[in-house]
Amino acid sequence: MCRWHSRRPANNVYVSSRRAVTQSAPEQGGFPPHHLTHHHRPHRPHHHLRHHARPHHLRHQEAGLHAAQGTPCMCPLFSCQWEGHLEVVVPHLRQMHRVDILQGAEIVFLATDMHLPAPADWIIMHSCLGHHFLLVLRKQERHEGHPQFFATMMLIGTPTQADCFTYRLELNRNHRRLKWEATPRSVLECVDSVITDGDCLVLNTSLAQLFSDNGSLAIGIAITAAEVCSAEAEV
Amino acid sequence: MCRWHSRRPANNVYVSSRRAVTQSAPEQGGFPPHHLTHHHRPHRPHHHLRHHARPHHLRHQEAGLHAAQGTPCMCPLFSCQWEGHLEVVVPHLRQMHRVDILQGAEIVFLATDMHLPAPADWIIMHSCLGHHFLLVLRKQERHEGHPQFFATMMLIGTPTQADCFTYRLELNRNHRRLKWEATPRSVLECVDSVITDGDCLVLNTSLAQLFSDNGSLAIGIAITAAEVCSAEAEV
Repeated sequence: MCRWHSRRPANNVYVSSRRAVTQSAPEQGGFPPHHLTHHHRPHRPHHHLRHHARPHHLRHQEAGLHAAQGTPCMCPLFSCQWEGHLEVVVPHLRQMHRVDILQGAEIVFLATDMHLPAPADWIIMHSCLGHHFLLVLRKQERHEGHPQFFATMMLIGTPTQADCFTYRLELNRNHRRLKWEATPRSVLECVDSVITDGDCLVLNTSLAQLFSDNGSLAIGIAITAAEVCSAEAEV
Repeated sequence: MCRWHSRRPANNVYVSSRRAVTQSAPEQGGFPPHHLTHHHRPHRPHHHLRHHARPHHLRHQEAGLHAAQGTPCMCPLFSCQWEGHLEVVVPHLRQMHRVDILQGAEIVFLATDMHLPAPADWIIMHSCLGHHFLLVLRKQERHEGHPQFFATMMLIGTPTQADCFTYRLELNRNHRRLKWEATPRSVLECVDSVITDGDCLVLNTSLAQLFSDNGSLAIGIAITAAEVCSAEAEV
């Protein structure tokens, strides 16, 4: 039996920078202790880059851990040309894009200003179960004049490591609930291709509006370890 | 913690009629006792009707039970011009469209031949908690050349009665799970407008393929009574 419970966040925290910035807010009444609510403005490219052709991010990388760690990884933000090794992706996102890291197995992420025109990215790093994950929420027009929202979770790690987890994104408002569960992709794979393939949570504008409150979309995020990997770890 | 469990149905039952037909199949090994798997070919309009402009189905009807029961209701199938009172919708769907009625709070519905071109409807009636519900899965091109799938549950009853229930549609395959939960609409409201508004489960072609097995899409369906209405019924 499903219980409808409000995920309406507390006061919004608006940040005027055009860069991706997150702000922590106090814990919510009505949320379990592990729920945190975070407020976020979209990451938008600088104006002269807005219509810039995006670099062909990645080469799929199915090789093992050893090979992958030496493989250059491109920044998942579509306006950034940075490239570096896997182990320096987190410092890059923190220092260059000021992306905050949230802790806890279950969090609530609030994307504000959903009305802003496409293209736009909202991103947050999520640290749990010994790894860093990256949520990318992208507003994009795949059909002209019809922007859609695409949300996916990437592991800042190798594809083999990513297979050990399941992530869940949940929207819950107006007596409607939408849940998407999948295995995260590795940031060594291209976030662009995940979104182009539509292998993620996809929202059209009307659904996004139904789930939004005053232009903000609250996304519940949970990560769990896949049973098979938990069992292997115990051996 | 989510468990991935296969909902792969048993042997498909194909029915050659172009009309909406359902076939019951034996209960599945591995399913809880209440799960039934049903196989279904799309309901398609006769060829000369395929590109026919659809009648403007409904007038929103927010009046109470008494007024609504006397209100003419149009057949929710887009090729059918039938109109009749609410209480004869079920016999109409049974007799004219040979739509089967499935019993039980939780069922699995299998829509076959998902590759057939839009427009196409797959429908099933679902009897539980003292009411009849109608699942409509529609393949439609809202953007030319890009068919999408829209799934919604209608109560064959009034809007006030519909508010007493929650329905859940669940897709589960390939380590991905998508769940949609909402209050059913009344068949007195127009299924076309629900789909046009996008206030339903929406799948693009790539997601539909990810969740399909050999061209068939298994949709888990569950109905629950909303707590507030259960409490009222007990008073």
